[in-house]
Amino acid sequence: MILMVWLAAVAASLLALAWAFRFYRQMMEADEGTELMKEIATHVREGADAYLSQQNRLVTITFLVLAVLLGIASYYLHLLNGFVPIAFLTGGLFSGLCGWFGMKTATQASSRTAAAARVSLNQGLQVAFRSGAVMGLTVVGMGLLYVTIWFAILYWAWPALMGAERAYSLEQISVAMLSFGMGASAQALFARVGGGIFTKAADVGADLVGKVEESMNEDSPNNPATIADNVGDNVGDVAGMGADLYESYCGSILAAAALGVAAFAAPQMVPEGMEGTEAQLATMMLPLAIAAAGIIASIIGIYAVRTGEDASQKSLLKALSRGINLAAVLMILMAMGLVYWLMPLVPGTEYFGGLSGVAFSVIVGLAAGWLIGKWTEYVTSDEYKPTQRLAKQAETGPATIIIGGIADGMMSVWVPVIVVCVAMTASFGFATGGQFGDISLFSLGLYGVGIAAVGMLSTLGITLATDAYGPIADNAGGNAEMARLEETVRARTDALDSLGNTTAATGKGFAIGSAALTALALLAAYVEGVRDGFERWGVAAVQTIDTDGFYKLSPGFMVHRDGDNATGYLVQPMIARDPLLTESWRDVSFSDGPAKLSEGVIAAGENGQFHFAVNGDALLPVASATLQEFTYFYDTTLMNPKVLIGLFLGAMATFVFCAMTMKAVGNAAEKMVVEVRRQLTENPKIKTGEAKPDYKRPIQISTSEAQRQMLMPSLLGLALPVFVGLLLGVGGVLGLLAGCLTSGFCVAIFMANAGGSWDNAKKYYESGHLGGKGSPGHKAAVVGDTVGDPFKDTSGPSLNILIKLMSMVSVVVAGLVVRYSLHSLGLF
Amino acid sequence: MILMVWLAAVAASLLALAWAFRFYRQMMEADEGTELMKEIATHVREGADAYLSQQNRLVTITFLVLAVLLGIASYYLHLLNGFVPIAFLTGGLFSGLCGWFGMKTATQASSRTAAAARVSLNQGLQVAFRSGAVMGLTVVGMGLLYVTIWFAILYWAWPALMGAERAYSLEQISVAMLSFGMGASAQALFARVGGGIFTKAADVGADLVGKVEESMNEDSPNNPATIADNVGDNVGDVAGMGADLYESYCGSILAAAALGVAAFAAPQMVPEGMEGTEAQLATMMLPLAIAAAGIIASIIGIYAVRTGEDASQKSLLKALSRGINLAAVLMILMAMGLVYWLMPLVPGTEYFGGLSGVAFSVIVGLAAGWLIGKWTEYVTSDEYKPTQRLAKQAETGPATIIIGGIADGMMSVWVPVIVVCVAMTASFGFATGGQFGDISLFSLGLYGVGIAAVGMLSTLGITLATDAYGPIADNAGGNAEMARLEETVRARTDALDSLGNTTAATGKGFAIGSAALTALALLAAYVEGVRDGFERWGVAAVQTIDTDGFYKLSPGFMVHRDGDNATGYLVQPMIARDPLLTESWRDVSFSDGPAKLSEGVIAAGENGQFHFAVNGDALLPVASATLQEFTYFYDTTLMNPKVLIGLFLGAMATFVFCAMTMKAVGNAAEKMVVEVRRQLTENPKIKTGEAKPDYKRPIQISTSEAQRQMLMPSLLGLALPVFVGLLLGVGGVLGLLAGCLTSGFCVAIFMANAGGSWDNAKKYYESGHLGGKGSPGHKAAVVGDTVGDPFKDTSGPSLNILIKLMSMVSVVVAGLVVRYSLHSLGLF
Repeated sequence: MILMVWLAAVAASLLALAWAFRFYRQMMEADEGTELMKEIATHVREGADAYLSQQNRLVTITFLVLAVLLGIASYYLHLLNGFVPIAFLTGGLFSGLCGWFGMKTATQASSRTAAAARVSLNQGLQVAFRSGAVMGLTVVGMGLLYVTIWFAILYWAWPALMGAERAYSLEQISVAMLSFGMGASAQALFARVGGGIFTKAADVGADLVGKVEESMNEDSPNNPATIADNVGDNVGDVAGMGADLYESYCGSILAAAALGVAAFAAPQMVPEGMEGTEAQLATMMLPLAIAAAGIIASIIGIYAVRTGEDASQKSLLKALSRGINLAAVLMILMAMGLVYWLMPLVPGTEYFGGLSGVAFSVIVGLAAGWLIGKWTEYVTSDEYKPTQRLAKQAETGPATIIIGGIADGMMSVWVPVIVVCVAMTASFGFATGGQFGDISLFSLGLYGVGIAAVGMLSTLGITLATDAYGPIADNAGGNAEMARLEETVRARTDALDSLGNTTAATGKGFAIGSAALTALALLAAYVEGVRDGFERWGVAAVQTIDTDGFYKLSPGFMVHRDGDNATGYLVQPMIARDPLLTESWRDVSFSDGPAKLSEGVIAAGENGQFHFAVNGDALLPVASATLQEFTYFYDTTLMNPKVLIGLFLGAMATFVFCAMTMKAVGNAAEKMVVEVRRQLTENPKIKTGEAKPDYKRPIQISTSEAQRQMLMPSLLGLALPVFVGLLLGVGGVLGLLAGCLTSGFCVAIFMANAGGSWDNAKKYYESGHLGGKGSPGHKAAVVGDTVGDPFKDTSGPSLNILIKLMSMVSVVVAGLVVRYSLHSLGLF
Repeated sequence: MILMVWLAAVAASLLALAWAFRFYRQMMEADEGTELMKEIATHVREGADAYLSQQNRLVTITFLVLAVLLGIASYYLHLLNGFVPIAFLTGGLFSGLCGWFGMKTATQASSRTAAAARVSLNQGLQVAFRSGAVMGLTVVGMGLLYVTIWFAILYWAWPALMGAERAYSLEQISVAMLSFGMGASAQALFARVGGGIFTKAADVGADLVGKVEESMNEDSPNNPATIADNVGDNVGDVAGMGADLYESYCGSILAAAALGVAAFAAPQMVPEGMEGTEAQLATMMLPLAIAAAGIIASIIGIYAVRTGEDASQKSLLKALSRGINLAAVLMILMAMGLVYWLMPLVPGTEYFGGLSGVAFSVIVGLAAGWLIGKWTEYVTSDEYKPTQRLAKQAETGPATIIIGGIADGMMSVWVPVIVVCVAMTASFGFATGGQFGDISLFSLGLYGVGIAAVGMLSTLGITLATDAYGPIADNAGGNAEMARLEETVRARTDALDSLGNTTAATGKGFAIGSAALTALALLAAYVEGVRDGFERWGVAAVQTIDTDGFYKLSPGFMVHRDGDNATGYLVQPMIARDPLLTESWRDVSFSDGPAKLSEGVIAAGENGQFHFAVNGDALLPVASATLQEFTYFYDTTLMNPKVLIGLFLGAMATFVFCAMTMKAVGNAAEKMVVEVRRQLTENPKIKTGEAKPDYKRPIQISTSEAQRQMLMPSLLGLALPVFVGLLLGVGGVLGLLAGCLTSGFCVAIFMANAGGSWDNAKKYYESGHLGGKGSPGHKAAVVGDTVGDPFKDTSGPSLNILIKLMSMVSVVVAGLVVRYSLHSLGLF
């Protein structure tokens, strides 16, 4: 069965890649337009290539440094699975490749979309949307392929090569694979932050001088920063988004798989007539199976996006929605079947006499993503009241539209928060059959949350396509403008662009909602990383020991050496506090390495369990400790000052990260403004089109600024969990992650929605409302849009990744924190 | 000893009030200036009076409704101490009185300050600062008096009247007194939000039409909204701040007292040779003693603020700093002595052979407040790089200064967060003698945190004076401008105002830092409220029972009726899960009221403790359950979905609250803009001063808008803890409070600092830098200032109160939540 699912997943991922290639070829065969159009597209392509190769150089160096650090941790300190450094690099590579393929496609597609739009709106849509689908299918194909390959290496290849006795346990495999996600997250953060700075510096620079000071049109070829602006759309919105969603997709699958293994670790959970590992393998495979089914659903959905040649914009929107909805319905049906087939049935959690409630968790996930998307559309689209009201506020000047946009953005947080909370409760509740109070089902409930995230992202193939085609249409518009094509072409690409904005809102809803649920799942998965860390510590410790016995390694941890076996045991703080254990346990010093406990301190019970002889208190084996027992061990309650400090630091990290990225955009934009002004002053003929501006220099400025400024925020995400872990231990890290998740989620939505609403309020003027283009209100709205640019395209979307990167880093360094935090050293 | 401390506290509070009256009389005796000055001051005074009486009418109605609800909870449902409704009303009254006295003084002081400034800068400072001191001393005097009176009523008067057998335990007294803080918090929120909306609507309206559209001067008498603007300074910055800090001051004392009682509830904590209640009374009195000492230190400090007649601005600043620093040093010395005298010495927590570490917690608190204040000054004052750089960003237009200010504000969060985290750790660590791991000292550590908050606010008498004189100087400037006094007078009041801005930063640092520490202490105090709720439940339940025995009331709670005694016992979930208890405990239905357990289910041990007979697991008496045991009972770990949902909702509440208050300002400002434009269009002679504008109508608009819009945000703070409590139980509430605290703290600092920096960036231009007044940069800076207005004067400062109000409400409704939450009903 496992092999079957695995093969199906591999087949689905290859299918996705094959279809992506097919759509790519179709797009390449389309008419590329006039010579001028080709030339402009080449400019943009070269700029984007130049940026990406520059970024890749920097990222490669950073990755190599990090891989060396991970290598030391793996091979020298034995804190990590030996595959982690390699997988970290491959994770980053795959993620980068997704962005690169997407960008390649997008830069080829823009002139072709413009050319197709000369024929009809539908032709334009087909080229743009299919090109977006290349990205969508590449991301899911590569993501699923990556996960399946690593599973095969760890589960089949490794024991086949090294002998069955060195086989990894499923727990080890799932935790190791989870830590592989760190590479993808780090790459995604670099891509999002770097791309975000690039695109917004170019955009703000182009707008402030070109549009505001010189009253040029959007995408005017006389604006020296125009090409940079178009390059920015590709490196930020396309390449950055590709890496971002690759990370989300893999992260959700890996987190759910790890939680599935954890849920069935306790023998009493395993249904009768089943082996424990059998149940674990099944729950580990379920997310892969759902992802595979999602690929099929997405491809079918993509084909449903078609209309007649003379289609109106409205019918195009319908066509897009039809595709997404069809994929979702198919997904729900397939998910029911897959859950029925794969999911081990725990008594009390079945519905309709045999279907595990986990099936409904998938539906909850899909519904939650859809709801957040609709809400995003409502609060940001200029077809609805909120943005129209905001646009009206611009009439009293820039100050009022800024205040209004910030207030609207902050207010818009409530629906997504409620949806995520309800989705969390519902997916948890369905998975446990509504038995919220039954602690033995707790891990199963968390698995339900993880599966909900997988469900939400399962149709990413098509939702990402609707998201990614927006920048393509945007660039097509730029191409049409610069190539001085007929007005109707520009009108059509604008229609496509605005259509893209609407559907992109749904896509963003899925991305942001899944980030919250995945981060929640990762919070639980982190505890699995902690367990793995303890086990490695035990194994490492017994290698320095010659005689059998019990050895104290820290105030709450001992290892039992029994020949070649090392078994770790936790001593809960409330047990360690017993005055009877003062001499035999608490006062035993471990500062010179593992300290052997005196004979007779530990006794074996009838059931083979060990306990303290003096008072009969049982030792807690690390391998079977529940999630809750770990939370008690580290006292991760809200009353623990370490947890509270962690929460504070997590909230702080959100704000500091946003500040860093916004400042980066501000600094880069300032240099861009200076450069554009310089060109226009030194050669005023550029303004009239008599002389050609130097397009390259603005691209260079954006590139070098983006590179210089993206390092610090990314390092914040990488370093903070390590520092907090070493200073405050596991409790502090959990606080940090929870704080960053809750604050970060709210800030991300606030920024995305405020930015989106300002953008559309400006467009509302530009489509002729309230005095139209050039009115004082429009000028104020442009200020709002400029403020919103870094909100919605740099800081906001990067926050999603920051949250998950911190979780991933925490999982990876769990072994370090378990062993060397001040808490483990008995200092704090 | 207790009586001595109590008398000293009463004496100190009366001293403060007497001195406040003295300063008031001195101020009233000062020269009031010309007839025109008097007339203008009268306008402002009448406007402020009109607003406050309008607000008081609404607040009174709201308070009466809430008091009726509390009355039902107290007298009918027996969920609360019977004094709560009365104390709720008196708390609101005292808080309101503080604001009212402060405002009375301020409105009388402005023209007198202007008159004094005609003589010299020092004369102006003396009048303004002494008037600020009236407010500072009134707040601390009323606050301490309120606390001491209620202590006397509950501790001495009640048993004297009703007989010793009905005396309250110290736990009950401390929890009841804590819930009295709710009245103060609710009043403070109304005052801050209402006043904040009023003042910013008037300010934004006056600026947008008068300054931007008509290029009038600040405070020009030709601007119809000028008087409203000046009224706003009084009702927002003075009355609002007074109520706010009264709440902070009382809250910190009450929270520390409650934690002190809790810390010495466990018999093993009480030092040898001491009674348990003796130790508890001592720790309860210590915060009162520190507050009393702080009053003395403040009065001495106030007298240290004096310079020669020909003083420069620099020497004035020195004089102010000298006063604050002197008060702090005196405070530290007195705190050492008081701790040495009062604090019970727990072995292992003493320093220098006999001084409890709690003494250093006081110092930590003072130092933390000072540091946050200095940082606030650094990031907001135009004498330092950050604000100067921000001002420069205005040269590229409003968008860049807005992005820059938001980024700077977000970045500025890091220092206060680190300071609060370090202060929390240090005050906890000093109190426990560095034994972080020793769980028995946990409550003592939290007491240290509570005491740090008291220490931070102990010198409020003088720090508030430096804060409150700012608006007085501001109004004096307005008075001078409108009365067309000589340029030098305006220059002097401007100097005083800018001096006030600098020292006010320190004051705000104390307010915001203490809010965080107090909220932390309240988090722990909430658990005491929960304990009280269980005990009341037990007592109420046995009144419906006729026979002795053990009765199950909820899945985890039973009460033992033994004659007239009712003792509550918790059954920890991990014990209840034992399969041996299925029939005898878990399956016992309590849906028809208290269900008697079968005879023999509970057995008494040798030590008099009860346990389940079948497995020997002990029952946990509610009265002696530790904080940690409660957190286990409710599983308030970060892995509990209810806690996580609470965290999400807490973060959400922060954003929604800010959105509501900002929208309120926006809406009110819009109406103001329309009105001012109307007056100027209908009678253009107003512009030239030939006709007098109608000052009353703008005041009416601000008043009615403020009233209409302040209800919703305040209700959010009042209702959310109740809903979350009923739906998600105690774990959810703790999550809500922690989420609101961490997000709210960050957002509050972000908003306050961004707003402050924008304000001063504008002033930087106005003092002639970077092209000076009227330059394009200045115009952009005005936009920044306008955006910052609701940030720093409405939403930001209200957040501090929201955090504490939610905590207070949670404490008050703890009894309701304990008994009727879905968790207690066994449903969720």
